[in-house]
Amino acid sequence: MSVDIQPVRDYFFQLQTDICDRLTAIDGGAEFSIEDIHQETGAHSRPRVIDQGTHIERGAVQYSYSLGDSLPPAATARNPELSGKGFQAAAISMIMHPRNPYVPTFHANLRFFLVDQSHWYFGGGFDLTPYYPFQEDVVHWHQCAKQACDPFGADVYSTLKKQCDDYFYLTHRNEARGVGGVFFDDWVEGGFDRSFEMTKSIGDNILPAYVPILEKRKDTPFGEREEEFLLYRRGRYAEFNLAIDRGTRYGLQTGRRIESVLASMPPRAIWKYNWQPEPGSAEAKLYEDYLPARDWINLD
Amino acid sequence: MSVDIQPVRDYFFQLQTDICDRLTAIDGGAEFSIEDIHQETGAHSRPRVIDQGTHIERGAVQYSYSLGDSLPPAATARNPELSGKGFQAAAISMIMHPRNPYVPTFHANLRFFLVDQSHWYFGGGFDLTPYYPFQEDVVHWHQCAKQACDPFGADVYSTLKKQCDDYFYLTHRNEARGVGGVFFDDWVEGGFDRSFEMTKSIGDNILPAYVPILEKRKDTPFGEREEEFLLYRRGRYAEFNLAIDRGTRYGLQTGRRIESVLASMPPRAIWKYNWQPEPGSAEAKLYEDYLPARDWINLD
Repeated sequence: MSVDIQPVRDYFFQLQTDICDRLTAIDGGAEFSIEDIHQETGAHSRPRVIDQGTHIERGAVQYSYSLGDSLPPAATARNPELSGKGFQAAAISMIMHPRNPYVPTFHANLRFFLVDQSHWYFGGGFDLTPYYPFQEDVVHWHQCAKQACDPFGADVYSTLKKQCDDYFYLTHRNEARGVGGVFFDDWVEGGFDRSFEMTKSIGDNILPAYVPILEKRKDTPFGEREEEFLLYRRGRYAEFNLAIDRGTRYGLQTGRRIESVLASMPPRAIWKYNWQPEPGSAEAKLYEDYLPARDWINLD
Repeated sequence: MSVDIQPVRDYFFQLQTDICDRLTAIDGGAEFSIEDIHQETGAHSRPRVIDQGTHIERGAVQYSYSLGDSLPPAATARNPELSGKGFQAAAISMIMHPRNPYVPTFHANLRFFLVDQSHWYFGGGFDLTPYYPFQEDVVHWHQCAKQACDPFGADVYSTLKKQCDDYFYLTHRNEARGVGGVFFDDWVEGGFDRSFEMTKSIGDNILPAYVPILEKRKDTPFGEREEEFLLYRRGRYAEFNLAIDRGTRYGLQTGRRIESVLASMPPRAIWKYNWQPEPGSAEAKLYEDYLPARDWINLD
């Protein structure tokens, strides 16, 4: 089968609409903005941002299609013969910062990179960052992740789950960002059609993984203490995005539209000096029972 | 003259005490914590943090003396013959995040690095990050900077001022962090005694540069709008610290005590999507009249 970016673009574009529509309906208070940014090259990006909603304090769902005349050497270290070739890329990425500390933050992205019929790959995944987690929510999240992967091989989920745990890790704190999910990169398994099917399977499972958690927890009563912990943990999110995340750092370094790159930042965050959760508290539970990587499908 | 780190350590240590004492007296509401962290190697660090003061929302003044058995190759790219040699380093660094948007945030650091009698250098500087600046305050700040440099050569201030403008710059936003000050690195001018004198001259001018501004502006009335802008601009500070600042990035990558490294983070910050100041507003004035690099000694 020939490798064509158009169906990938169409899928990412439609997925953006579906996700924004569904989250808008649940939020009930705010809507996603739309900007369509077309360039002469044919590039097209559509940042969509929801702000100060009833349940979503800020969320961004971004679609982009870009193309370049000449691959930079840094992008082709493993394939030096590709240097200077033209390329195309399509991507969707999203992040939701909820108001309610019982609702986790979630992040997902999917991307496709194409140089020519024999040089292309898919990447992406989704991961969850809870504040006051419920075990059943984390299990549900990982079951959706597994369900998305299982048709593509018995060990795909466990491989992608480990890659997610490894990637979303704050080495400077020896601490996971959250409870993970799946993460894949340079994906060409089984050829283009099969790889695209897997990418779609991950994409199709984003809403089923997140929406039930959002709906179940969004009206949970909370107080100042819980909100303060939410804001404190969002500081970790800011640390990861700015200091570690390859996508964000690439965006900062390459002069992409900065407001799109940093739409993922938390709307509010706090930092405390030398703060530790009280032993035995609900906050300590996050650190002890949820952040250390574990098997959420076969619980001990 | 022989090169000895002890007087440099003594000066940095005393300067820490002087700065903390003075700021505590002005704040009147909170005190600096003290932790003394000694290691078997002889290393000593003393992080001091003031939190939730009357005027200072968070401030950190850190002293450290460290030593190593063997210089890592990355630290000696320009002097490969030093690789594997022992070294010592002394440093003081500080940052103050005020509550009042009419008081600027300030940052300063001084450092000394010693391998042997012929391989050592000083570095450091101070820079100011206002929210709602007063021209006379910025002029005063730069006059103190110039006064600190002038005994060491007619062009020292202008060289160090330009280095400061170049360093404290958010390339991803094409925007300066603040109104600058002075910044120097690899400084060996005139030999050890002379370089140490200049470093002390910079250090001795920190309080004279900042305290008059803090005292004059700390009781200026402000409202929600000004506080929101303060918090929004603190987001830029977080971006600079986490994504750009070499000291912070070095700290994150080398496993230094993370709470000391990130004591510089703002206690609260916000991010807005695609926000721009209203043309003609006080907020626009910061971007138009203060952030673009300019000569604050000879005003146009």
